[in-house]
Amino acid sequence: MGAQRVVGILGGMGPAATVEFFRRLVAATPATIDQSHLHILIDNDPGIPDRTKAILHGGPSPEPALVKMAKGLVSAGAEVLTMPCNTAHVYLDAIRRGVTALVLDMVEETASRIDDEAVGLLATSGTIRSEIYQRALAMRGIVLIVPEEDAQRTVGRAIEAVKAMRGLGEVESAIAAVVADLRDRGAEAVIAGCTEISLLDGERMPIPWFDALDCLVEATLREAFR
Amino acid sequence: MGAQRVVGILGGMGPAATVEFFRRLVAATPATIDQSHLHILIDNDPGIPDRTKAILHGGPSPEPALVKMAKGLVSAGAEVLTMPCNTAHVYLDAIRRGVTALVLDMVEETASRIDDEAVGLLATSGTIRSEIYQRALAMRGIVLIVPEEDAQRTVGRAIEAVKAMRGLGEVESAIAAVVADLRDRGAEAVIAGCTEISLLDGERMPIPWFDALDCLVEATLREAFR
Repeated sequence: MGAQRVVGILGGMGPAATVEFFRRLVAATPATIDQSHLHILIDNDPGIPDRTKAILHGGPSPEPALVKMAKGLVSAGAEVLTMPCNTAHVYLDAIRRGVTALVLDMVEETASRIDDEAVGLLATSGTIRSEIYQRALAMRGIVLIVPEEDAQRTVGRAIEAVKAMRGLGEVESAIAAVVADLRDRGAEAVIAGCTEISLLDGERMPIPWFDALDCLVEATLREAFR
Repeated sequence: MGAQRVVGILGGMGPAATVEFFRRLVAATPATIDQSHLHILIDNDPGIPDRTKAILHGGPSPEPALVKMAKGLVSAGAEVLTMPCNTAHVYLDAIRRGVTALVLDMVEETASRIDDEAVGLLATSGTIRSEIYQRALAMRGIVLIVPEEDAQRTVGRAIEAVKAMRGLGEVESAIAAVVADLRDRGAEAVIAGCTEISLLDGERMPIPWFDALDCLVEATLREAFR
């Protein structure tokens, strides 16, 4: 497997998504004993200002806290940084300017795996408004279809329910209906573009499910074992 | 809830147990939005020398690496340290001498919750040989019953299987047989005293199951929200 690089996770956005990313990363690591697993540093800081509130409503920017977190992880030894929060990728450039370590881009990693002509997006209103997915897909000639206003409210409530650790079953049914709408409007597949949405079961959805969190797990393993 | 203290997790022993501790800690936190969750720092370093090999066979001691890890977490801001690995508690005194932060004791936390007269122990051979559980229970007048030689080999294989992420179903059946033996020898309950054993389903066991990892989750919440 060659040399392994220390992974740093900018976490807490939200905590359940960080737990799930860590779980999938450890489960996907080709190791049979402790000593062949990756060295992973996690800063799970749920106090990072709300990303969507900052983007939509001019709330306090999470940028300084994210840059500080990245620097802290690098000082502690991290060589490959990952951020299991799609909306926080709005601040990716600032984080990259703040550290010399490699910072993975979950949005690019996801977009690069899609070969459909039109895909739907399940994400926070902040991610949608910032157009990070629209840009990454447009560069590849892929049309992005976002939920209409009412459906987007359903997505927002689903994300809050997951953050509050409420039952996933009902949330999945509501999201499956949003996905069916996106399909009816031309989407061949849908991106789970919010790490809380990644906690839902893609198998229950009516069209293929591209999970951004899984794409980030793959990218992290690729770079950590390079 | 009052002020929250930053939690530091000495992890990677093994990674699956660290994932599970983090998952249970987040799930048990009384929070409905990101911002009321705990700030948790994790150093998941699977390269810490094998605890059982050091205790039984004179392998390299994990003590310097554990003390260094604890110091690193405290420098990064951790105020309450937890170590989801029972065997590593053999080095608890050295870690406590190395940092000024509170370091929780999973063995004491577990022993203090038991009110049976005799309990069995499922743990690594290193934990058993070191007698950390025997001492904590003897001080409370509780008799500890450990598996006989063959049964202990079954426990060791079970721990390795969990570390290698092999199916838990078969492992649970094998461990249930070991627990039945402990019951026949007088145990009223059994301690899941290895964080890999904590990943098994206690409901499948023939006598009550005290999970050390759950005791550590409770203690961590108590101290972080103090």
